Amino acid sequence: MKTKGGSQDSPHHDGSKLYVSNIAPLIGEKLSLRVRVPNSYIFNEGYIRVYEDGEPRTYQLKLEKKLKHERWFKVAIRVTNIHTLYRFVFVGEGKYEWLNAYGLSDHDVHSNNDFHIVAAPETPEWIGKSVFYQIFPDRFAKSGKVNLQPDWAYPREWNQLPRGRSKFTGQELYGGDLYGVEEKLEYLKGLGVNGIYFTPLFPSQSNHRYDATSFDHVDPVLGGDKAFKSLMKSAKSNGIRILGDLTSNHCGAGHEWLNTAKNNPNSKERSFFYWDKKIKWGYVGWYGLESLPKLNYASKALRQEMYEAKNSIVRKWLTPNVGMSGWRIDVGNMTGVLGSDDYHDEVMHGIRNAMAETNSQAWLVAENGDFKASDLDGLGWHGAMNYQGFMRPFWNWINRNPEITGGFQGLPFAMPKINGSQLVSSIKEFNASIPWRSLTASMLLLDSHDTARFRTVVLGDRKAHTAAMTMMMTYPGVPSIFAGDEIGLEGSWGEDGRRTINWDDTSKWDVEFLEEVKKLISLRKSQKALISGGLRWVAIEDDYIAYLRETKNQAILVLVSRNEASINVDIGAFGYSIDETLYGKKIRGSKINFSSKSAAQGIWQLKAL
Amino acid sequence: MKTKGGSQDSPHHDGSKLYVSNIAPLIGEKLSLRVRVPNSYIFNEGYIRVYEDGEPRTYQLKLEKKLKHERWFKVAIRVTNIHTLYRFVFVGEGKYEWLNAYGLSDHDVHSNNDFHIVAAPETPEWIGKSVFYQIFPDRFAKSGKVNLQPDWAYPREWNQLPRGRSKFTGQELYGGDLYGVEEKLEYLKGLGVNGIYFTPLFPSQSNHRYDATSFDHVDPVLGGDKAFKSLMKSAKSNGIRILGDLTSNHCGAGHEWLNTAKNNPNSKERSFFYWDKKIKWGYVGWYGLESLPKLNYASKALRQEMYEAKNSIVRKWLTPNVGMSGWRIDVGNMTGVLGSDDYHDEVMHGIRNAMAETNSQAWLVAENGDFKASDLDGLGWHGAMNYQGFMRPFWNWINRNPEITGGFQGLPFAMPKINGSQLVSSIKEFNASIPWRSLTASMLLLDSHDTARFRTVVLGDRKAHTAAMTMMMTYPGVPSIFAGDEIGLEGSWGEDGRRTINWDDTSKWDVEFLEEVKKLISLRKSQKALISGGLRWVAIEDDYIAYLRETKNQAILVLVSRNEASINVDIGAFGYSIDETLYGKKIRGSKINFSSKSAAQGIWQLKAL
Repeated sequence: MKTKGGSQDSPHHDGSKLYVSNIAPLIGEKLSLRVRVPNSYIFNEGYIRVYEDGEPRTYQLKLEKKLKHERWFKVAIRVTNIHTLYRFVFVGEGKYEWLNAYGLSDHDVHSNNDFHIVAAPETPEWIGKSVFYQIFPDRFAKSGKVNLQPDWAYPREWNQLPRGRSKFTGQELYGGDLYGVEEKLEYLKGLGVNGIYFTPLFPSQSNHRYDATSFDHVDPVLGGDKAFKSLMKSAKSNGIRILGDLTSNHCGAGHEWLNTAKNNPNSKERSFFYWDKKIKWGYVGWYGLESLPKLNYASKALRQEMYEAKNSIVRKWLTPNVGMSGWRIDVGNMTGVLGSDDYHDEVMHGIRNAMAETNSQAWLVAENGDFKASDLDGLGWHGAMNYQGFMRPFWNWINRNPEITGGFQGLPFAMPKINGSQLVSSIKEFNASIPWRSLTASMLLLDSHDTARFRTVVLGDRKAHTAAMTMMMTYPGVPSIFAGDEIGLEGSWGEDGRRTINWDDTSKWDVEFLEEVKKLISLRKSQKALISGGLRWVAIEDDYIAYLRETKNQAILVLVSRNEASINVDIGAFGYSIDETLYGKKIRGSKINFSSKSAAQGIWQLKAL
Repeated sequence: MKTKGGSQDSPHHDGSKLYVSNIAPLIGEKLSLRVRVPNSYIFNEGYIRVYEDGEPRTYQLKLEKKLKHERWFKVAIRVTNIHTLYRFVFVGEGKYEWLNAYGLSDHDVHSNNDFHIVAAPETPEWIGKSVFYQIFPDRFAKSGKVNLQPDWAYPREWNQLPRGRSKFTGQELYGGDLYGVEEKLEYLKGLGVNGIYFTPLFPSQSNHRYDATSFDHVDPVLGGDKAFKSLMKSAKSNGIRILGDLTSNHCGAGHEWLNTAKNNPNSKERSFFYWDKKIKWGYVGWYGLESLPKLNYASKALRQEMYEAKNSIVRKWLTPNVGMSGWRIDVGNMTGVLGSDDYHDEVMHGIRNAMAETNSQAWLVAENGDFKASDLDGLGWHGAMNYQGFMRPFWNWINRNPEITGGFQGLPFAMPKINGSQLVSSIKEFNASIPWRSLTASMLLLDSHDTARFRTVVLGDRKAHTAAMTMMMTYPGVPSIFAGDEIGLEGSWGEDGRRTINWDDTSKWDVEFLEEVKKLISLRKSQKALISGGLRWVAIEDDYIAYLRETKNQAILVLVSRNEASINVDIGAFGYSIDETLYGKKIRGSKINFSSKSAAQGIWQLKAL
């Protein structure tokens, strides 16, 4: 029986090193590109079509080698411009078919989905081997060493649940702090994560801290600069990198800039904001909020402060003596955009350049990447939080909770229930529109502080959660676990999901799940094919999907099933059989054939038949 | 029997005035958007999703009216930014479907194909009522008033065929001139065209004149500035507009700029070019050609000369006293791009602004629009020559000549033979990725001086040519007929197709076809729905397609069949029956049901059932 939906009969190429001789070439450099073509795919001649200085050119593919099940072709091109857009075309009797990043098409397709190589330095090397852990600092761990009660806060007992939508939202303070995080580094090391993504650490007037009153310090409520310094030192010695969270779009109403601007209309800070007498509080706020004054990048002085000057905010946290490894940019999609003003690309490129100048290995990842093609064209953000091309479609496929909406993505209605084919189409829609390097530098997530908890999305089903975690740890990109997911924390929406971890009483922890997560993290960090392999779809059924991750020396098969299913995948057509079970059901041979009464998954190392 | 492939069961919206209250709004303006939904399409609630300052928002659709076969919904949005990207979503039990410019999708889709309104002045109003006629001036008509024999030329008798690929290519001079064109204005008026697109008129050293030696004058070989002035006057009095052709990408090796630059390394002209001692002739030429020095837009002085200064090239030909109505930009895709230099968008926007400042009704249309999204985002070129989204797919569908390749588009192999579904998919791939305004401001063509003649593509079949002409005259965009097509001239590729019209002996003219073309042009110019209507697909079969063009007060059905076919289209599902046959087979009722032994077509005015 033939596996459905896979690419066993289709030529394949992607942006990984298996197919591209140099994924970060220089202009003028010669590149060798390879395509694999199953022997079952019939054609007379193949070409690459590539734009050089804006003009389309074609070069014929040459046979490199012929195996039992497939042929490899190669072609050399010269990198002419910063962006190299290309696709392949296979010509037969009275037909041709294009192969682009979306797949094979029997009709003409737009260059939006062309393969795309960027002549720019490689994205940070270390992110390939990283698994991040997202910490909302008020809720992760409390050392007891800090006992500040700011005016704005409603104190809350550590193990109480958040009260959700109420006057307390944003002001409930549990008192997590950075000493607390430092105390738990051993736990994180045991879990296996090697990066922490912190939502903002800046002083502010809320528990989420997206309303910074200064970008120069760590909130004293978190232990301040001292606790941060101590944490950074311990994190470094434990091999854990730290990613910060910056609101380039806005600051908080309590920010020193706004005070200065209000008090002194001649100050340079006056130019940092949008002033409007028709608005009650006098300035434009993000989303119309008084608490979040929108930053105005027409101001050259603001650009200096934010990212251009040597001691600017973007730069100083990334210097070796501070030691952060990158920035997550809040509402990256909106930064610099208001009405007829659009400084978005200038600001984005400014931040990117400032980071590269300060630390060539700094990672830049922004919220949202769907709106503007320039966001992820290789010169903007390194990557995005992959909500559009991973989390949302995956939720739509696996969800069981009709009460969860896509609200955080602006969709005020219940999620649909899609099949595997819809899932993969959705994923490809987004991932095919960006260079491979932007996909692999994007953050994979099952949830975040802005969403429901994944465990709640699947109505508490650990097996579905394990299947999901398997996909996240094996798909191209940088996995990020929202703190507490690994022990099965729940929550129906953003604030409700921002629950504390009960460190004193672990009886409610899902420790079985925790052990599975550890195994999966370990695989992600150690297996070459998961770190840098290409991606080929093997099976796309309603209830399960399977894909290959392949490097020159390793091939791994991943299977993810969302619920009860009869699984039937034959990897013989791909020239493989199973060499070793890395995770999940032990199987031999080239046929994965079993019935499962629940969600299921597997990770297998393959060998050539 | 249900019509296949059409949208009778699908919600519909497009960028035309039937669905958008103002297609060229200002920022801050409120817009009303409408969607029609067949009663057969079941859903619970519908929303628009629109980006405002980069953030996705949703607003619920409200029922406007309910008819026997469909419901109309509307929603108000405020135009927040220059670009308004939006789509609709229809939510049902456990599902949602997106409606974007490509159509309806049951999986998540990228904003690349969102509907797109641009807060910029409307594209020139007159192009909607225009049918252009492309003249390659050396080959259209010879007055006998000019008898210059430039050094570079190989004179050729008027009614001889071009010799094709040989040492004469580019140098064979037939001696057509602008007095000759002026003498034929009566003929053009009789044909019905009201615009002439001239390939370059500048002095040069070739018959194609894409190698200008000056951008300030008309070639004396064409009668010079005097003949041009006389022609402009007559054209104006005959209601015929003139579109020029500018090589913003390069000039000719004989250009005065290059001479000055060579002779005086300190001249400002030195900065206009790319100098490279490794190249035999010392400068970079387009496509590596010595004859076409590439222009270097790092030079501010060049920008001044080309488009910025008051008397710059782009501007001066568009002033009222000269009177041209716009520019076709040669190799627009390459202008400003070389290696790591990319001034493309700056130059494009500079040209656009210069034109708008000189003549707000000037039309800017460029060769190629697939490569860069910014080309056709509403702020770049008004439109492109629609090779990608019209001509090429249409050729692939209707061609009968296996010897014609897509070579002029960089594809050195035979065209495929695609079916109607592949045709429409190809068309939608390109047309959905641009704002409606960019589609309607693009040039429709069946061929050009760069391609084979359409008549040869269909192996001389007049009926197929008539069907093709029907599609070109009824599809959104500005039709352009390559001079001589209307009498059935042939030619297998660019140079071979640049044949002269034999005015003395019309016995070889296809006068029957000429009469059909006249009727079609007349319809195009007079029928509101063809001028500004929306577009809905009604039938997509292997061998025939049908679509609606609709305004508030008129609905027109167009049918195009490529060869022998049993045609069966029911427009009852769309709430229409035929009111009047405008072209082709006389039919009554709401069923188009006939067999044809050849290519066929029809244009019918409809009435509500």
